[in-house]
Amino acid sequence: MEVENVAPCQEAEATPQVEQMEELTNLSAKYSNLSVIKLETTDPASVAEAMKEVEKQLKGRGLNVLINNAGIISETTLETVDEKDLLNVYSTNVVGPMLVTKAFLPLLKKAAEENPQAHMNWTRAAVINMSSILGSIKLNAESFLRNPVLSYRCSKAALNMLTNCQAVGYKKDGILCTAIHPGWVQTDMGGPKASLTVGQSVNGILKVLCSLTENHNGILLDWEGKIIP
Amino acid sequence: MEVENVAPCQEAEATPQVEQMEELTNLSAKYSNLSVIKLETTDPASVAEAMKEVEKQLKGRGLNVLINNAGIISETTLETVDEKDLLNVYSTNVVGPMLVTKAFLPLLKKAAEENPQAHMNWTRAAVINMSSILGSIKLNAESFLRNPVLSYRCSKAALNMLTNCQAVGYKKDGILCTAIHPGWVQTDMGGPKASLTVGQSVNGILKVLCSLTENHNGILLDWEGKIIP
Repeated sequence: MEVENVAPCQEAEATPQVEQMEELTNLSAKYSNLSVIKLETTDPASVAEAMKEVEKQLKGRGLNVLINNAGIISETTLETVDEKDLLNVYSTNVVGPMLVTKAFLPLLKKAAEENPQAHMNWTRAAVINMSSILGSIKLNAESFLRNPVLSYRCSKAALNMLTNCQAVGYKKDGILCTAIHPGWVQTDMGGPKASLTVGQSVNGILKVLCSLTENHNGILLDWEGKIIP
Repeated sequence: MEVENVAPCQEAEATPQVEQMEELTNLSAKYSNLSVIKLETTDPASVAEAMKEVEKQLKGRGLNVLINNAGIISETTLETVDEKDLLNVYSTNVVGPMLVTKAFLPLLKKAAEENPQAHMNWTRAAVINMSSILGSIKLNAESFLRNPVLSYRCSKAALNMLTNCQAVGYKKDGILCTAIHPGWVQTDMGGPKASLTVGQSVNGILKVLCSLTENHNGILLDWEGKIIP
């Protein structure tokens, strides 16, 4: 079983929540193996409740893949950034993945234990943090002036660090932890001018997910599997 | 003129504030060119007030060097970290340097404009963010299990990103921005077992500071001037 957090939309151009709910309900009506569970990733109580519901639906089995997809962006620059913005974006983009992974850890460990001899990969147990190339300090100078999103960059650099810490810390449990940059995608966050359709990005990410090995533990890959420094 | 934020001590083993105040007052009594100004780096009102006081003391001149030294650490692991800890450490270690640099920017710009032909270096205008090798994702696996300090690592990775953003953004203004890792120092934060005395670290940092050029803009160096990836 896999759990994927639903990404909250970008604050500035939020699709109404009702519309999003409808889309999700329609999907779960169409696919019997899809279950929609409410989850506010920055609220420990909500995370604990969602974990209990997933545990119930798993009926004693483990959880193989957790994708921390929820994230926000804000269009702040060195001039416009303030403390509220930095903390708000950090909360969703870093605190959320930490809380969700910590809560779901017992289910991930259980999945890893079900295949104790297996190599680390997504069929055993894996955490995927959806990160961004904009969190790469090495590549920062290439795009910063064009697209500053300061609080987002700082949060994704921290998320890449969190991913590496999780990778090192959970290795003994057989849980693979990798960050993936989905590309610039035509979502609520990416906007309609983005270079990739949702289908292109998701297909790429699934292909990358299926190819992950121990060698990818703790690193950042893009949707085509290229390593981002 | 240079401004250096005073580092708040580590929460767990805080030196009483009164004692710290006395040390600072004694120092400023001893050195006539040293001025102690109160500054709570995460409080915009306090930062603005401190900036006004520095501006007054500068009597129309610019500020050449700003050292963002204030920082905290907490001994949290993947198991013990919570949202409060992540946000609290991020606030002091990332939001603080952002707020202080933003507030002092007019004075740094003024200093850079006083020497329009000069190369970027500390005698013109520079921001130094005191960061850490523990913020290096590349080196993370070497020390994480021994010394997890999860929230600190995430905050310093973000601070290294902030430094790079400031470096790229303020280059046009002639302001050099560099992050420096002071080493493991016998301070309130580092504890008495640390490998460096305060004198060794500070002398090293000052030597590095004086050697900084445009080539060091946006990167992380240690107290001996070695580049940290």
